[in-house]
Amino acid sequence: MKSVKAFAPATVANVCCGFDILGFAVNQPGDEVILTLRDDELVRMVSVKGDGGKLPLEAERNTAGVAVISYLRSLGVKQGVDIELIKNLPLGSGMGSSAASGAAALVGINELLGNPLSREQLVIHAMEAERVACGSAHADNVAPSLMGGFVLVREYNPLDVIKINATDDLYCSLVHPHLELKTEDSRKVLRQSVSLKDTIAQSGNVAGLMIGLTKPDYALIGRSLKDVIAEPIRSAFIPGFDAMRQTAVEAGALGFGISGSGPTVFALSETMEKAHAAAKAIQREFEKHRLKSDLFVSKVNQRGAYIID
Amino acid sequence: MKSVKAFAPATVANVCCGFDILGFAVNQPGDEVILTLRDDELVRMVSVKGDGGKLPLEAERNTAGVAVISYLRSLGVKQGVDIELIKNLPLGSGMGSSAASGAAALVGINELLGNPLSREQLVIHAMEAERVACGSAHADNVAPSLMGGFVLVREYNPLDVIKINATDDLYCSLVHPHLELKTEDSRKVLRQSVSLKDTIAQSGNVAGLMIGLTKPDYALIGRSLKDVIAEPIRSAFIPGFDAMRQTAVEAGALGFGISGSGPTVFALSETMEKAHAAAKAIQREFEKHRLKSDLFVSKVNQRGAYIID
Repeated sequence: MKSVKAFAPATVANVCCGFDILGFAVNQPGDEVILTLRDDELVRMVSVKGDGGKLPLEAERNTAGVAVISYLRSLGVKQGVDIELIKNLPLGSGMGSSAASGAAALVGINELLGNPLSREQLVIHAMEAERVACGSAHADNVAPSLMGGFVLVREYNPLDVIKINATDDLYCSLVHPHLELKTEDSRKVLRQSVSLKDTIAQSGNVAGLMIGLTKPDYALIGRSLKDVIAEPIRSAFIPGFDAMRQTAVEAGALGFGISGSGPTVFALSETMEKAHAAAKAIQREFEKHRLKSDLFVSKVNQRGAYIID
Repeated sequence: MKSVKAFAPATVANVCCGFDILGFAVNQPGDEVILTLRDDELVRMVSVKGDGGKLPLEAERNTAGVAVISYLRSLGVKQGVDIELIKNLPLGSGMGSSAASGAAALVGINELLGNPLSREQLVIHAMEAERVACGSAHADNVAPSLMGGFVLVREYNPLDVIKINATDDLYCSLVHPHLELKTEDSRKVLRQSVSLKDTIAQSGNVAGLMIGLTKPDYALIGRSLKDVIAEPIRSAFIPGFDAMRQTAVEAGALGFGISGSGPTVFALSETMEKAHAAAKAIQREFEKHRLKSDLFVSKVNQRGAYIID
């Protein structure tokens, strides 16, 4: 039967001042999915590798399966598919793990059916998968994983997802400490109201980041990578956070923050060398707190999920 | 003695989603200032025309005088100057009237002294004048009046003022109803805390506006011109406000909102024709509430204040 292999990248949501509205994709790491058409209407997860047995094998509960089911239903296509998922992204890491599985599966099934939907049109099906995985249908990971680059989620009702005409030359350091943090838990700690002063500061920084990314103005990107809303609360869960910012910037990074809702942290740099230096500097801070960590250093991804050969 | 005449344009601060961080300049109307060097150290307001006698004639209390005094002090220049101010902007209108007088005076004195300071460097002196006129040293009118175009005030401490690489092709309708509203009063009514949901919505819209202006993407500019923070409260002071938005958009405007803290309202359009149509449509709504109004339709200004001949 017809078969295809797809890759979808890890993503950094929030990006400091872009709390709940912004995300970007990196070239590596990412999840892979092999989809094989069946001659019946069954959608099955046939295997999941690399998750340590933690992810469900029922298609209705696995993000790859949920995304494909939502896609097929919306098109009214009576087509079954076998899904093999290769998890390269750590679970509950803040690197968009659930989003990447859904995005890869969607790009795969869309390819198998002759690409009837655009990348933007796939977003809504990946959001359905996020609802199952995280309890809320957010788009700030799935949209950049599908579309690549920096993506703004301006509004949900109606959904308005915009790829930002950002500079190509940005390098991301991701440092994933070996401690688990649930998205749901780190949402609960957020305050439901914000001072007018902080609202204005956040607006100013996100506007500055947009201008910095599009001009591009790297110093402005650096000055704008601040979060006065989630970070002051969530950073308490990440040992050594403040020292990490300092050491990352001293190593040459433009800015530093929490990836998604953590515990992974990220830095953005103007060169690959600085991104490597920042990653190692951050890792040394985790070591001071007796935490092991994984490093991922990569260029910001512009193409999003793609079909492998 | 050496003399110079300078013009500085009206400005629209806030620009819906850019509450307290954004402003833009228009080509017309604007204030004019004639500066003449003296052979002593005295800074004098020799005349103010067009204000109906409302503005102070003491240099230490008039924005044009305050700006010039701040400028001369910072440079340590012992130079006197006579200032004639021609007010074309209505007072207390939300069109950056006080800012324009200060901006024109600063561009004038800077020219007379051989332009030792850049436009960005003049901003801080114009802010001093705003402090005297409005009680707070805000920059969202003075920065665009001096620098032209759309200007982001990302942060005040330290001051970070950024000219946005926005499209040239935008046309502004300003409609000034004959009712007075004090900036101080319309600040008092604002709530000092904002829901997390509204903070996110405002961030999404201001990010969308930045992308829309720089791409340019006119539909995105229109979708992003929303204010969930100040407008729901301040629009109560402007009779017919909601109907005006509808009629302006029906006339072809991309978006509509309060200029500064009002009572002037503005619309942005893609062509001069649409800007004229929107202005007239808005004026008709004011007429329904028995309010006369003045219309100013003009291209968004890119150069800021300038020396006349």
